[in-house]
Amino acid sequence: MKALVHKNQKGLSGLVYTEFEEKGPKPGEVRIKLITAGLNHRDLFVMERHQPSDPPLIIGSDGAGIVEAVGEGVNNVIVGNEVIINPGIGWKEKSDAPPEGFEILGLPFHGTFAEKVTVPAENAVPKPAHLTWEEAGVLSLAALTAFRALFTRGRLKEHQRVLIPGIGSGVATFLLQFAKAVNAEVYVTSRSEEKGQRARKLGAVQAINSNEDWNRQLDNQKMDLVIESVGAATFNKSLNQLRTGGTIVTFGASAGDQIQLDLRKFFYGQYSFFGTTMGSSEEFTEMIQFINKHKIRPIVDKMFDLNQFEHAFERLNKAEQFGKIGFRINSLSD
Amino acid sequence: MKALVHKNQKGLSGLVYTEFEEKGPKPGEVRIKLITAGLNHRDLFVMERHQPSDPPLIIGSDGAGIVEAVGEGVNNVIVGNEVIINPGIGWKEKSDAPPEGFEILGLPFHGTFAEKVTVPAENAVPKPAHLTWEEAGVLSLAALTAFRALFTRGRLKEHQRVLIPGIGSGVATFLLQFAKAVNAEVYVTSRSEEKGQRARKLGAVQAINSNEDWNRQLDNQKMDLVIESVGAATFNKSLNQLRTGGTIVTFGASAGDQIQLDLRKFFYGQYSFFGTTMGSSEEFTEMIQFINKHKIRPIVDKMFDLNQFEHAFERLNKAEQFGKIGFRINSLSD
Repeated sequence: MKALVHKNQKGLSGLVYTEFEEKGPKPGEVRIKLITAGLNHRDLFVMERHQPSDPPLIIGSDGAGIVEAVGEGVNNVIVGNEVIINPGIGWKEKSDAPPEGFEILGLPFHGTFAEKVTVPAENAVPKPAHLTWEEAGVLSLAALTAFRALFTRGRLKEHQRVLIPGIGSGVATFLLQFAKAVNAEVYVTSRSEEKGQRARKLGAVQAINSNEDWNRQLDNQKMDLVIESVGAATFNKSLNQLRTGGTIVTFGASAGDQIQLDLRKFFYGQYSFFGTTMGSSEEFTEMIQFINKHKIRPIVDKMFDLNQFEHAFERLNKAEQFGKIGFRINSLSD
Repeated sequence: MKALVHKNQKGLSGLVYTEFEEKGPKPGEVRIKLITAGLNHRDLFVMERHQPSDPPLIIGSDGAGIVEAVGEGVNNVIVGNEVIINPGIGWKEKSDAPPEGFEILGLPFHGTFAEKVTVPAENAVPKPAHLTWEEAGVLSLAALTAFRALFTRGRLKEHQRVLIPGIGSGVATFLLQFAKAVNAEVYVTSRSEEKGQRARKLGAVQAINSNEDWNRQLDNQKMDLVIESVGAATFNKSLNQLRTGGTIVTFGASAGDQIQLDLRKFFYGQYSFFGTTMGSSEEFTEMIQFINKHKIRPIVDKMFDLNQFEHAFERLNKAEQFGKIGFRINSLSD
């Protein structure tokens, strides 16, 4: 089968579109013919972490497709099922942190940027009926991250004000859609006027220019919750915008990870600050129920063929996208 | 009546032991003859904040005594009641932050370092029967701060490991006693071998030297919860000692309030970080029930007469104490 395989060099220059041996399924696993897959920043980190001396690796965490083979002992999934993949392996119940041994598909296990992928049967989840294959393929990792950040960790409630600095990334667009679905008031920041406009069309009350004075643009309105993934460039601006007793959640640091924090301000502010990454299978199930209930459809930015991977990753790397970037892999008639 | 009155100069040099006019009680208030009172770091902050141009102010937040007059409309408190004072005014129910208008006795309202104090009737709370007057007078502010930090914010559970950097302060000794009462495993740090020994006598599993490698001394044991009040000098050591998914609570920054934080480490650690100060009336009631149930007795470091205030504040300022420093005011037979 064809796949995007990382080998021989660190970083994106180690990624090749090539033939790779098809695997499995072993007992308890299923093999899925992938229709679509989704890109994540994690893919870039994986290509930095995966060493030239390691065995070649198919990268990719998100994907959707059709089950084409089931291993021994698999009862709940049958050949022909349309599924999306939960990329988290080994974190079942919702908890404050993943257990020892938790892994994400795409390192160390072969991932989804391939014609086929083999995963544990419980990681093949029925594809929500209201989603296109493009939407289904780009959903999992970003939507799960957004869901845990907003609800498990941020405990967002109806009518609360939530600020999302740096709208545009896949997770950020899910945050916006999920928060709107529970009738929160959503505010976003961006350096891009166009991304701000798109966020307003998706229901943001206000989109502010992240380079100008936030508090002035927000007319001194303070937030119940801020979901931070920009990092050093915005963290203290985010904190300044919190109401007393407000909550800030962080899952990313694309613009720097070292911040200066004023402890006195933090405890007089009675702030709550939570770190989060991805989420458990229990949260994945809740997230799927949530998008089914609210008929949420992922914002698909652009789809590429697997052999156009350089263009796809360039778009991701430059943060040009609004929503999720994906790969088209097999067509339904293949 | 005699009182410690702050006037004319900022800081401790503006504090005088002098005659001051007795007040109230107005409707809804009670006047209390104080037997004892307790010192807090807040008294030092108050003397920095209270300006020479402001009206003279009796400082002090903690105290215990006997009700000697009740204002109109007071039903639940009668003359002769033995009471301790809840110093929080205007924060009733437990919540993520105090409401607008919340104040603490001792600024802007006259405080407890006087022969008498007048407070809202609901702030006069029955003195726990198992406490001496010395113990009752030093309880309120520190015990309430410890209670909210440990349980409301830190959500400490039985058998969890909790680390208390900088044992010795009033709040820190309450943290130790409260955590022991729910069967947590308590670890402390101190620069003082003697304070470490005293903490072990109070039930700490281990007392480590705060100047040496924490993780080595703790044999790489990670904590479920750290309650931080030292600040810049220890914050990142505290964070390093947290287990994945652990919680850190801060209410003080005696050794510096500016810290450097690694966001990436924070979110991969799935940490929770809470700021807290004092607490609500609801938490005060819970705290009193808790110390009654567990028969907890505050650690009294040393009692002074009001006119010895310079010695008392010097001891506090130099952090020489283990437990609470207090004032003896009226004797029961006065």
